[in-house]
Amino acid sequence: MNDIPYRSALVIGAGTGISASVTRLLRAADIPVVVAARNIDKLAPLVKQTGAIALPVDATDAAQVEQLFAETEARIGAPEIVVYNASGRVRGPIADLDPAEVEHAVAVSALGAFYAVQQAARRMVPAGKGAILLTGATAGVKGFALSAPFAMGKFALRGLAQSAARELAPKGIHVAHVVIDGGVRAEHRADPPDRPDSTLDPDAIAQSYIDLLRQHRSAWSWELEVRPWVENF
Amino acid sequence: MNDIPYRSALVIGAGTGISASVTRLLRAADIPVVVAARNIDKLAPLVKQTGAIALPVDATDAAQVEQLFAETEARIGAPEIVVYNASGRVRGPIADLDPAEVEHAVAVSALGAFYAVQQAARRMVPAGKGAILLTGATAGVKGFALSAPFAMGKFALRGLAQSAARELAPKGIHVAHVVIDGGVRAEHRADPPDRPDSTLDPDAIAQSYIDLLRQHRSAWSWELEVRPWVENF
Amino acid sequence: MNDIPYRSALVIGAGTGISASVTRLLRAADIPVVVAARNIDKLAPLVKQTGAIALPVDATDAAQVEQLFAETEARIGAPEIVVYNASGRVRGPIADLDPAEVEHAVAVSALGAFYAVQQAARRMVPAGKGAILLTGATAGVKGFALSAPFAMGKFALRGLAQSAARELAPKGIHVAHVVIDGGVRAEHRADPPDRPDSTLDPDAIAQSYIDLLRQHRSAWSWELEVRPWVENF
Amino acid sequence: MNDIPYRSALVIGAGTGISASVTRLLRAADIPVVVAARNIDKLAPLVKQTGAIALPVDATDAAQVEQLFAETEARIGAPEIVVYNASGRVRGPIADLDPAEVEHAVAVSALGAFYAVQQAARRMVPAGKGAILLTGATAGVKGFALSAPFAMGKFALRGLAQSAARELAPKGIHVAHVVIDGGVRAEHRADPPDRPDSTLDPDAIAQSYIDLLRQHRSAWSWELEVRPWVENF
Repeated sequence: MNDIPYRSALVIGAGTGISASVTRLLRAADIPVVVAARNIDKLAPLVKQTGAIALPVDATDAAQVEQLFAETEARIGAPEIVVYNASGRVRGPIADLDPAEVEHAVAVSALGAFYAVQQAARRMVPAGKGAILLTGATAGVKGFALSAPFAMGKFALRGLAQSAARELAPKGIHVAHVVIDGGVRAEHRADPPDRPDSTLDPDAIAQSYIDLLRQHRSAWSWELEVRPWVENF
Repeated sequence: MNDIPYRSALVIGAGTGISASVTRLLRAADIPVVVAARNIDKLAPLVKQTGAIALPVDATDAAQVEQLFAETEARIGAPEIVVYNASGRVRGPIADLDPAEVEHAVAVSALGAFYAVQQAARRMVPAGKGAILLTGATAGVKGFALSAPFAMGKFALRGLAQSAARELAPKGIHVAHVVIDGGVRAEHRADPPDRPDSTLDPDAIAQSYIDLLRQHRSAWSWELEVRPWVENF
Repeated sequence: MNDIPYRSALVIGAGTGISASVTRLLRAADIPVVVAARNIDKLAPLVKQTGAIALPVDATDAAQVEQLFAETEARIGAPEIVVYNASGRVRGPIADLDPAEVEHAVAVSALGAFYAVQQAARRMVPAGKGAILLTGATAGVKGFALSAPFAMGKFALRGLAQSAARELAPKGIHVAHVVIDGGVRAEHRADPPDRPDSTLDPDAIAQSYIDLLRQHRSAWSWELEVRPWVENF
Repeated sequence: MNDIPYRSALVIGAGTGISASVTRLLRAADIPVVVAARNIDKLAPLVKQTGAIALPVDATDAAQVEQLFAETEARIGAPEIVVYNASGRVRGPIADLDPAEVEHAVAVSALGAFYAVQQAARRMVPAGKGAILLTGATAGVKGFALSAPFAMGKFALRGLAQSAARELAPKGIHVAHVVIDGGVRAEHRADPPDRPDSTLDPDAIAQSYIDLLRQHRSAWSWELEVRPWVENF
């Protein structure tokens, strides 16, 4: 039974982790999916496995994001689900960072998300329906030392999510921000035997994305955090 | 398919709203449920409808809570799911409140929850398994004017939930706090026609409780808030 | 120059740390101070040093708190500043704690504060003036493992502070909650030479209390956290 | 008496409000001050009144910010106090905003602050001393509808502040973020007679900045919010 009340999806910042798992669950529910990334070569296995359509995009370029939505609309209809999963990260002492890299990191984590939310809003508001899921991180609620650019980008993303939820929820659009607290398990990489499930299984995360999509509008969540049972927090 | 990985449930502070909806969903998954309240007469329809067992308890009395768990264990086995849903509320200017009523309100919202969490922990820790769901409110994250006792109780409940999650999650016990932000729809009471789903449907809330129970331990949430799409927040 | 705009103070939960330092700064500004504690013997040096008046109180007893305010009013006038500094703490696994001790801990940290805020409000609201400072802890914003009762009490205190600030600020009463994040330096106890100022100097904390008292009503803070420069947070 | 333990200050994003008041208080303590803004013509009265030095800067240009610090160092020595007070704001429905304006708003509120913090860190870390004060807003803790770009910028600023505080405090540098909650009183503009002090007096805000500068390192605050006594929050 497909009880996800949406008929098309666009997943931006796609790779092999969360976005691949979300894509598989959406495809299993027979929802057409476009997956977008800067380099779509790496998406070939996912495309082959799921039948998703891969499109290239540099999410930090507003015009490319606009073009991506137009192309998506042409291929599978206006996306009723949009997932933004791209992050920019550069680490180091504040004094040593390269300003251009900082700017780029914030652009990937936050400005790209804005462009995507904007394109989504333009299509979803007239339809009175849609869901926007933004992949956040602990860095969006706690600014760690030696990671200022990631904190800036993920805090900004959370601010965008909250503002968008306040604006768009009363128009029928469910905006949710998911705080991933911990390391996501990489493909073909097992947890230490004495610490099973100590990294986040991307399929488990994806299930929570699906649960959010299935929430009834009388009881929507705008934020959800997930972490492994053994994670310190 | 019953994919809730628990086999018995105790719902404390049962009535006609959230707890009744949770009970129905658990019973639909064939999980035995004990529902407990100060006055169990009002639970008769729920018992009749679902086959849940009703037991009386004054949750502010540690000995009665201990007795409730013992009786539950005798009837359906040690509860693997415990839901605490009781609240104490008294409103008014701080200067005018009756200290005894304030004390009682905090006891119902928070001390009773502690007694329940303690009894649950005594059974779940040795088993290495279990789930504890605590019903919170916006008052637990924002202290409103003229409602100090409710703020005190719900803030305390949230502190308990967070502390219990940090202690018990690594022992295999999922503790989650659900922030209900808005009015819960009362039985036989419809939303205004121009504001559909402007109150929280208890069945929709209950679905999120079930989703929490189904989360994989590699990606547990310790908190979830839910609110109607049109709610100001 | 005395630019603290209040003329009398009551400090509850007095000892040798924060409350003693606050008392000294208030007395240095020529403000009459009553210091109250369960056992006032330990206050003798402070009384001798500052000329503060010591009165006994069990803060968990609403009637005693009421009596304390009446006695304070008789001695130095209705207190225009009230500082609540008492805490109840009991540590251990949730399963092992004594319910009566948990109840008492919450009563000391939170119910006693409510009784004090209530008595303060009864006097300050008619006067349209006053300041209430509540000593919180990191445990009031983060519930640590093995410390559920302290988390419950300090979360509840913070909820009370926020609710009281929302109710009382528009009536001219400044309510502020101070989050002490770290260990307070004990009397006659120095920090390790390689970690100077790694514990909170109570005189430094007290200065921030005084700064709060001096804030103009157009720019009041309801919360302030303080921590040592080298504290992890 | 000048008990501010710093000897030079740079105030970026200077105008007639908070930054002018901070400048006056610093100058009253005989601390040399450079004030910087995009258009320094408007700073002429402040310069005349206080003897501060005005320098032009576009804070969104990393090279200009670097040049500003070099010039400041040449004029008054490396700044031991840095205040960042610039904000970018553009309002409207998400669907209607101009992406370039959004990018610019985030750059003014957050990237410019990063460039300033970086330049400050390069000078303060070797000295083992300094203070960085960042002017935030309620929008940095709560994302309002129709104001996504301001939320993004101010959330990012808060993330930067928290990350910088964690990195730099143990190096002797006090980083603090001030949440301004409410409208700041404009020059020559009075509050309504029936709502005195219902806007934030910039002199009152500035006093809290000075109080932060005077905090002892054993009890530093990384965040402070200020709001009018009658403000809803």
